Amino acid sequence: MTQNEETVLAERRGPVLLLTLNRPERLNAWNDELEWRYFALLDEAEADPDVRAIVVTGAGKGFCGGADLGVLQEVSNADEVGPVERARPRTFPLTVRKPMIAAINGAAAGLGLVEALYCDIRFSVPDAKLTTAFARRGLIAEYGIAWLLPRLIGTSRALDMLMSGRIVKGEEAWAFGLVDKVVEPDALLDAAVGYATELATLCSPTSMSVIKQQVMRALDSDFTTAVTEADDLMVASFNHPDAAEGVTSYLERRPPAFRPLGAR
Amino acid sequence: MTQNEETVLAERRGPVLLLTLNRPERLNAWNDELEWRYFALLDEAEADPDVRAIVVTGAGKGFCGGADLGVLQEVSNADEVGPVERARPRTFPLTVRKPMIAAINGAAAGLGLVEALYCDIRFSVPDAKLTTAFARRGLIAEYGIAWLLPRLIGTSRALDMLMSGRIVKGEEAWAFGLVDKVVEPDALLDAAVGYATELATLCSPTSMSVIKQQVMRALDSDFTTAVTEADDLMVASFNHPDAAEGVTSYLERRPPAFRPLGAR
Amino acid sequence: MTQNEETVLAERRGPVLLLTLNRPERLNAWNDELEWRYFALLDEAEADPDVRAIVVTGAGKGFCGGADLGVLQEVSNADEVGPVERARPRTFPLTVRKPMIAAINGAAAGLGLVEALYCDIRFSVPDAKLTTAFARRGLIAEYGIAWLLPRLIGTSRALDMLMSGRIVKGEEAWAFGLVDKVVEPDALLDAAVGYATELATLCSPTSMSVIKQQVMRALDSDFTTAVTEADDLMVASFNHPDAAEGVTSYLERRPPAFRPLGAR
Repeated sequence: MTQNEETVLAERRGPVLLLTLNRPERLNAWNDELEWRYFALLDEAEADPDVRAIVVTGAGKGFCGGADLGVLQEVSNADEVGPVERARPRTFPLTVRKPMIAAINGAAAGLGLVEALYCDIRFSVPDAKLTTAFARRGLIAEYGIAWLLPRLIGTSRALDMLMSGRIVKGEEAWAFGLVDKVVEPDALLDAAVGYATELATLCSPTSMSVIKQQVMRALDSDFTTAVTEADDLMVASFNHPDAAEGVTSYLERRPPAFRPLGAR
Repeated sequence: MTQNEETVLAERRGPVLLLTLNRPERLNAWNDELEWRYFALLDEAEADPDVRAIVVTGAGKGFCGGADLGVLQEVSNADEVGPVERARPRTFPLTVRKPMIAAINGAAAGLGLVEALYCDIRFSVPDAKLTTAFARRGLIAEYGIAWLLPRLIGTSRALDMLMSGRIVKGEEAWAFGLVDKVVEPDALLDAAVGYATELATLCSPTSMSVIKQQVMRALDSDFTTAVTEADDLMVASFNHPDAAEGVTSYLERRPPAFRPLGAR
Repeated sequence: MTQNEETVLAERRGPVLLLTLNRPERLNAWNDELEWRYFALLDEAEADPDVRAIVVTGAGKGFCGGADLGVLQEVSNADEVGPVERARPRTFPLTVRKPMIAAINGAAAGLGLVEALYCDIRFSVPDAKLTTAFARRGLIAEYGIAWLLPRLIGTSRALDMLMSGRIVKGEEAWAFGLVDKVVEPDALLDAAVGYATELATLCSPTSMSVIKQQVMRALDSDFTTAVTEADDLMVASFNHPDAAEGVTSYLERRPPAFRPLGAR
């Protein structure tokens, strides 16, 4: 793997790490090089106690136009394609324990939309073009989007987006629950970073990490299992210093000083 | 079974098959005869390579008022009713591999609403009266609607509609995610057929069929299973001619010429 | 347990039981005493054939501000907290067979929001402050809310509310599907009781009870299981007098006279 560190840019804004997909001449098309760099930066973010939230955006006019068409063309024209081997599963971003916010500054198509869906929260511009695109390329619902999308926006809207491959823009995406906030282009990054900063300053990193895992697991579990797990996690939270700090800071009407993720 | 072919009308509009429930003097009330005809036409549509999408609507003032009240009255007044034997399960339309769009031209009540929900996408007029009705007739949530509706519109709206049996009209249904598009009566059919035509001309029949099954199965599976299945289906899609055609037609900026479902 | 009957007030409005959380000087903060009284009143409501629906609201300015902070402070400052023993599971309200409507008159925070979510339907005032709050107190997604919320409002909005702990007001909550109707403060109780009265007078208590259980179980089951169960329950409904009464009253255009829950 060529390790081109320019494919994703990293910049700190206080407790927030801003990652920018950076192949603007290709609408930030996804390739292995970019993925390798993106995952490496997410690893660093996980390990860095000063990073409490992550914002992901795209350089130039779009967020991510999808899989690099050169790669796709090669694969679809090959005589016979076998299973793809990957060093790490493509779904890795879903396992990141820190909150991830996508700032969708333009087109998010195919795998580009999938990557936006791997984030926890999505901000977008009004003219963001969100499309699954797969059915228009003779492809299928890749990398778990057939599972994720109905749970985000309901079965019917998911089938609409997946079968038609049509473009959904910001306001419609907001009405669907696909995008959490629609913001004008010149205010997008500030809004996403501002939201991330609130998470970083007001919320316990441990709480957010546990809750994120609870939600993902609860989607795969029955109610009784989720409640039993929550009871255990609640007892654990009472025994973590963040609980006392959370209550005390609230009663003292001051900002909380929560521990970094992993610290006690 | 009397085989009254007039209970459902079939008409081709290019690559789209338009099916019209046709017992307008009874608000297209559902009975075994109509169901037999409807299922037979869906079978034909599945087998016909020229049919790439299906639109379902109702003749006259409504879409479908529900189970024929005569039948219902007979059953509810019988001394003792046993399990109902059916040649084919009532849920058969959910297994149709081609996209199905409901054009809800008026009342869709009880089983009539269930049939609309068995379609993938729903267009409706603003004054369409959508109601589960069951609780107001002393009945229960029939034919899987207790499973389908929460996954379409969320638990609370589903409980509202199912417990109250109240009427929900077009705009509210759209806000719920129950209806995908609200269209004035004189434009309803054209809009639904237009959408279906886009699916027929822009999207791979194989892709749509695979995606439809992926979504339905993903609702019953955990995330890891869905991702693993998607990886296998993705490899299969790369080895299907539609993938090369999808990419090539996109690069050549021309409409795709995808294979009919089942052809290679 | 001190049995202070003033912690929750009960009042009949025709077939509707109105329960008012009544610790207004503490924003109706939840403690064991209040829970004991609330559950006892729900038991009575279940047993009383004249009660056909339940409305829950809060005295004073809020619905319920969450767990009593005194209790929380004690727990979070204890040396070591073990599993909490409860006479009855906190999720008990979810098993009540009669419809429960929350009339959210103000803040519903943390456990207060959970209690609102244990109701089937939610009415709220425009300025109701709905917040999970947990992450801001160093806590986790307690008592099944990590499972319930994504199924109500979709994964992304659930993660937004759970990770950020931010306040969501009435109109946004309605758009999310978290609240079913937004009503001005001076009309809230009448609206909620009016809706409950419609359930009580138009809908079969047996049907509503069965449907409520169907929806809850369907969220934990696959589609085939839900359909098979619905087929059995449908046959049972045909053999219950409410089905004949439902059809007959409809044909006779008169209000139905359904049996109380449990009667035949």
